[in-house]
Amino acid sequence: MQNRQWRLSRRPEPDEVISPQNFDFVTAPTETPKDGQVLVRTLVLGTSPAQRGYVSTTRSMHEKLPVGAVMRGRGVGVVVESRHAAFKPGDIMTASLGWQDYAVITPTTETLSILNISKVANPVRPLSLHLGLLGGAGATAYFGLLDVGQAKAGDTVVISAAAGGVGALAGQVAKRMGCRVIGICGSAAKCDWITRDLKFDAAINYKTENVDARLTELCPKGLNVFFDNVGGDILNTTLDHLANRARVVICGYISTDYATGPQVGPANYKNLLRNRSRMEGFYIFDYVPRWHEAEDKLRSWFEAGAIDPVEDIDHGLENMPDTLASLFKGTNRGVKLNRVAPDP
Amino acid sequence: MQNRQWRLSRRPEPDEVISPQNFDFVTAPTETPKDGQVLVRTLVLGTSPAQRGYVSTTRSMHEKLPVGAVMRGRGVGVVVESRHAAFKPGDIMTASLGWQDYAVITPTTETLSILNISKVANPVRPLSLHLGLLGGAGATAYFGLLDVGQAKAGDTVVISAAAGGVGALAGQVAKRMGCRVIGICGSAAKCDWITRDLKFDAAINYKTENVDARLTELCPKGLNVFFDNVGGDILNTTLDHLANRARVVICGYISTDYATGPQVGPANYKNLLRNRSRMEGFYIFDYVPRWHEAEDKLRSWFEAGAIDPVEDIDHGLENMPDTLASLFKGTNRGVKLNRVAPDP
Repeated sequence: MQNRQWRLSRRPEPDEVISPQNFDFVTAPTETPKDGQVLVRTLVLGTSPAQRGYVSTTRSMHEKLPVGAVMRGRGVGVVVESRHAAFKPGDIMTASLGWQDYAVITPTTETLSILNISKVANPVRPLSLHLGLLGGAGATAYFGLLDVGQAKAGDTVVISAAAGGVGALAGQVAKRMGCRVIGICGSAAKCDWITRDLKFDAAINYKTENVDARLTELCPKGLNVFFDNVGGDILNTTLDHLANRARVVICGYISTDYATGPQVGPANYKNLLRNRSRMEGFYIFDYVPRWHEAEDKLRSWFEAGAIDPVEDIDHGLENMPDTLASLFKGTNRGVKLNRVAPDP
Repeated sequence: MQNRQWRLSRRPEPDEVISPQNFDFVTAPTETPKDGQVLVRTLVLGTSPAQRGYVSTTRSMHEKLPVGAVMRGRGVGVVVESRHAAFKPGDIMTASLGWQDYAVITPTTETLSILNISKVANPVRPLSLHLGLLGGAGATAYFGLLDVGQAKAGDTVVISAAAGGVGALAGQVAKRMGCRVIGICGSAAKCDWITRDLKFDAAINYKTENVDARLTELCPKGLNVFFDNVGGDILNTTLDHLANRARVVICGYISTDYATGPQVGPANYKNLLRNRSRMEGFYIFDYVPRWHEAEDKLRSWFEAGAIDPVEDIDHGLENMPDTLASLFKGTNRGVKLNRVAPDP
């Protein structure tokens, strides 16, 4: 079998949006699994802002991908050949399959983990759900909001990048918990979508509205939780609207991913003292032992029709660099995925 | 009796160090207490960076003092005349006595509180201790370090303004809890003092040493708690040395109190995500219900000779503006106080 692959050819410059020009699209023979390995057909690939860190020259907490290697990325796939006792053909699994049609995966006691290599014991269709609502995006939204952010009924919750995958899920979780939810996003169409379809209480278009003035209007008593995906000016402005004992959840800072030169921090961090508040980052890998809490809850909401999995799906492995780039261009709406092959 | 008073005459400019030129030193007749009031002789006056906020034109979470009014400030005093059933002459109390020899105080159910008007049930000599180790400074150090900072045995704790009142007490509390303690301060003499006399494990002179390089050397595995009193560059640099799950306690930001123009925030706040860490402000008034925890512990350490109350005492009400100014000039060493009259 032929295996199409995207291989890193040139690292993006710090201010360069990732694009097909950073990769070579090649066709190679499919590897044969050895003892203890499985061969997996890629069905759907996910995206994460962290993936830019794999390839960029800038500092990242992730291991750098060598030039020439197949681009790293999580996916859901189906086992087509197994030389591992715990897997058989037809099993559904999630793993870092990489940007390719077929991957040879080596499950071991070290690598078998919900966020590394994992068999999906009880698959839900479409299988893409295991990369979004029931995968890292859903768990990030759930634990970020409820564990780090300690959101509870009656709280006013503000979410940036609210039309992104994590933001759109976090807002819906907050609504399910009885919070008042305000989303900040970058177009009128996204504002309409999160308020009309996802039932956010209000939306702020940061490109056309004064975020500071709108937060004053929408949060006269201050906000209790800010779930921040963007950093930069929006973080700084929002820090001026904290209620006492507010929780600022640092989930990401995508607005500064292309910043060059000296970076500016949030001068309004001083309000953490004035409002006895907290700003805290988290790392979804730390929640692996509690994963089932999020998955069970999100799955039950999904099965009851009480949460929209907000999937935004491109089709075709050949489009994968553009699929990832959309996160940085802000053109996605919800969990950005690429459907490589139909569910079996 | 004649009552000497410092009255606010002119608010300091944003970049002006507070000085006697902001006040008039006047002599007025002592007021007579009415029913429900007590007349208190000021014995010792305390200082706090927050006092600049009372009089400056810049934003503050405290009520502004009107021009012409007696400068506000906490003190310990002795009741000389009482028309309140719960107080009698000779009682020791702490209250906002103001910068004057005699104050008329009105204890009510609303104002009787450990951080407002309070009778010292069980006085310790010298009575100045009730403004420092057993007052706000001690409680701020104690709860900031142990409750907000969650410092525990084996932790590496970094403290800025380590030779200030709160810093020098926090460092000693951390040592008592079994932490490794590194202080950052602004002179070789202060570095000597905190390491030799207060038994900090190490000190960094930020005026002559590279803080970043020294932290790398002293905290090869990162720090677990940063107790920050200064903000600015030191906060930003220290945020680059967090261990995972570190706690950054925002107690103050005195380095930026005179900053004019646009303020710069800590760009390294991003490490809160990279290191799944937390930055949190607190307000000592929130700890009033738990006050006895700090006071009992600090008192028992003091009585056992296990903690130095680090009092730095000026003498004479006439010097009070300079006493306060020393906090901003960094010339104090420990809890800065002014002895107005001898303990009775």
